[in-house]
Amino acid sequence: MADATDVAYMERALNLAVKGRGRTSPNPLVGAVIVKGRRIIGQGYHHAAGRDHAEVVAIKNARGGCRGATLYVTLEPCCHTGCTGPCTDAIAAAGIKRVVCAVKDPDPRVHGKGIRALRKSGIEVVGGVLRKQARALNEQFFGYHENGRPFIVLKCAQSLDGRIATASGDSKWITSTKSRRLTHRLRSEVDAVVVGSGTVRHDDPALTVRLVKGRNPYRIIVSSDMKLPRKCQLLRNNEDGRTVVAAACDANRQPLSKRETPIIFWRLRRTKNGLVDVADLVHQADNFGLRSMLVEGGAKLATSFVEAGLVDKFVIITAPIIIGKGVSAIGDLATKRLADAVQFERHSFDGSDHDCVFIGYPKGRG
Amino acid sequence: MADATDVAYMERALNLAVKGRGRTSPNPLVGAVIVKGRRIIGQGYHHAAGRDHAEVVAIKNARGGCRGATLYVTLEPCCHTGCTGPCTDAIAAAGIKRVVCAVKDPDPRVHGKGIRALRKSGIEVVGGVLRKQARALNEQFFGYHENGRPFIVLKCAQSLDGRIATASGDSKWITSTKSRRLTHRLRSEVDAVVVGSGTVRHDDPALTVRLVKGRNPYRIIVSSDMKLPRKCQLLRNNEDGRTVVAAACDANRQPLSKRETPIIFWRLRRTKNGLVDVADLVHQADNFGLRSMLVEGGAKLATSFVEAGLVDKFVIITAPIIIGKGVSAIGDLATKRLADAVQFERHSFDGSDHDCVFIGYPKGRG
Repeated sequence: MADATDVAYMERALNLAVKGRGRTSPNPLVGAVIVKGRRIIGQGYHHAAGRDHAEVVAIKNARGGCRGATLYVTLEPCCHTGCTGPCTDAIAAAGIKRVVCAVKDPDPRVHGKGIRALRKSGIEVVGGVLRKQARALNEQFFGYHENGRPFIVLKCAQSLDGRIATASGDSKWITSTKSRRLTHRLRSEVDAVVVGSGTVRHDDPALTVRLVKGRNPYRIIVSSDMKLPRKCQLLRNNEDGRTVVAAACDANRQPLSKRETPIIFWRLRRTKNGLVDVADLVHQADNFGLRSMLVEGGAKLATSFVEAGLVDKFVIITAPIIIGKGVSAIGDLATKRLADAVQFERHSFDGSDHDCVFIGYPKGRG
Repeated sequence: MADATDVAYMERALNLAVKGRGRTSPNPLVGAVIVKGRRIIGQGYHHAAGRDHAEVVAIKNARGGCRGATLYVTLEPCCHTGCTGPCTDAIAAAGIKRVVCAVKDPDPRVHGKGIRALRKSGIEVVGGVLRKQARALNEQFFGYHENGRPFIVLKCAQSLDGRIATASGDSKWITSTKSRRLTHRLRSEVDAVVVGSGTVRHDDPALTVRLVKGRNPYRIIVSSDMKLPRKCQLLRNNEDGRTVVAAACDANRQPLSKRETPIIFWRLRRTKNGLVDVADLVHQADNFGLRSMLVEGGAKLATSFVEAGLVDKFVIITAPIIIGKGVSAIGDLATKRLADAVQFERHSFDGSDHDCVFIGYPKGRG
């Protein structure tokens, strides 16, 4: 049984977990706290993929030995050998007698087996403490395992009337500096950022993380015709080798490989309508090892993702301006009745700053 | 000099003033509190046009006589005879020795003359206490006197992507019941609601106040061609005689006057582009005695008002749905650069409920 004390220690473990944000993929964020008597004797979090898991960090940090202690951990401990050994063994070896965990690991290699292994070693296990918060913390990780494909975030920065640019294409900047910082934070939290070739031609974005601290994601340009400006930033500035061109044709592929750091190339299928097949893009991104993607636009690409039902999370930043006729954030979704519109399981509007930030998790579309 | 005590009593007076909401036009909302020693001996507010002003209500209610007391009033007392006599005389006659008022009356018949009259009678006058709040309380009244025309509120109920209907015209209901209640409250606070004839043909609205308590405003249908469905609610249900047809032509005018309660008819000019001239509409509404109008749509009419720079306040209610291609809330404003977009002096986003409510006061457009 869990009580208020358990909840308090789990909150602490969740707060620790957050510290690894942007560095753990493909692993989840995990935090751990070890308590003996009424004192925290050890704590830690998973710093980055390839490094010690949170439980092991906490055990190594623990003062005075863990025998008889309780371990609080935000995710079910693993029971398999990856880059590091199974945490369940380390926990048992440390003499921990009780484990409180927030949520089962959705990874099929663990999913309940970790808890069973602990119980087999005679350890008491309590599950489900702050489960909702723990899931939300790792929404990308849970989404990946539950959908069997990368978790996809769509971000729009628009005017009050849903425009992302004037009719003549002026779009810099609709939203505030603070909102652009949010965009950079979103980039730092995903494995890849995706833009259409129109956006590359028009805006020539760098898609790097500059306004906040964080790791640069892969940069995927989606193109149906390979008509990319050779001098665009994404092709030129590729020292880290993270630029990908995903195109629905082979023409002109040579210039990509002739570069000092070759551009990664994915050949994409087309849909019946002749558009780039974004489902195929997501499939190839999955095979490549990407667990999460941020779709940044333009409108055509965003619309394709929405239409294909491939958006797991919408982040729509609305600035207090009205443009009138211009470029719409979302194009034709063939919505005849209101009941056919994209609806949300849960959502929030945060209007506390200059712009309003909408975050929504869509309902599945029949 | 004003102090914290003065501010506290003025807050009370403002809270009283609000009670008259929706019933005082063309007069403003006004509240008054009379304090003697440290006790409130009288208080009141302006209940409705034609009734006693707040100061007089408070004096009549006062227990034990006002001699030597302080009067707190949210607007400069009037010094002219309208439906009722000058408040300045009543205040002096009651023996009040100090008047604290929030803001000068913008009505040119008063505007500072009330304060001068009080001072002439030997009364100490302190002004500007909670001025901003007092102005906001009567934004329609101040707007009317400062712009020399009715105060115009534009309301849209839209999807996240700025659509007010699907491409096939489905629009009921984009927003929540709570948001529709807000619309009814907005109606109850203005002298007239304005819609285009397309909205009448398509939605057949009643434009009455039903979801909240309140007075029904005038109902203005704007039409360029008088093609109105004879059986629409606005023409049929006109027992109160508050339906106005404002049209840019005379054809078929007869059916309006042949009714049991005749429909009011205004003939409007056209703009150079052949559209109904909304500036002329506002001019005629002004001559008719209307002090405030709520433009409820459709998109064409809303766009005309925005383009003409005739919107004083935007209320944009955004529901958490995405429609994609459909009917846009705002049409062509000929915005070439972002700098030409409608910007706001001040605004707020309130996302605390299911929908997000934006309220904004636009900057003048060069």
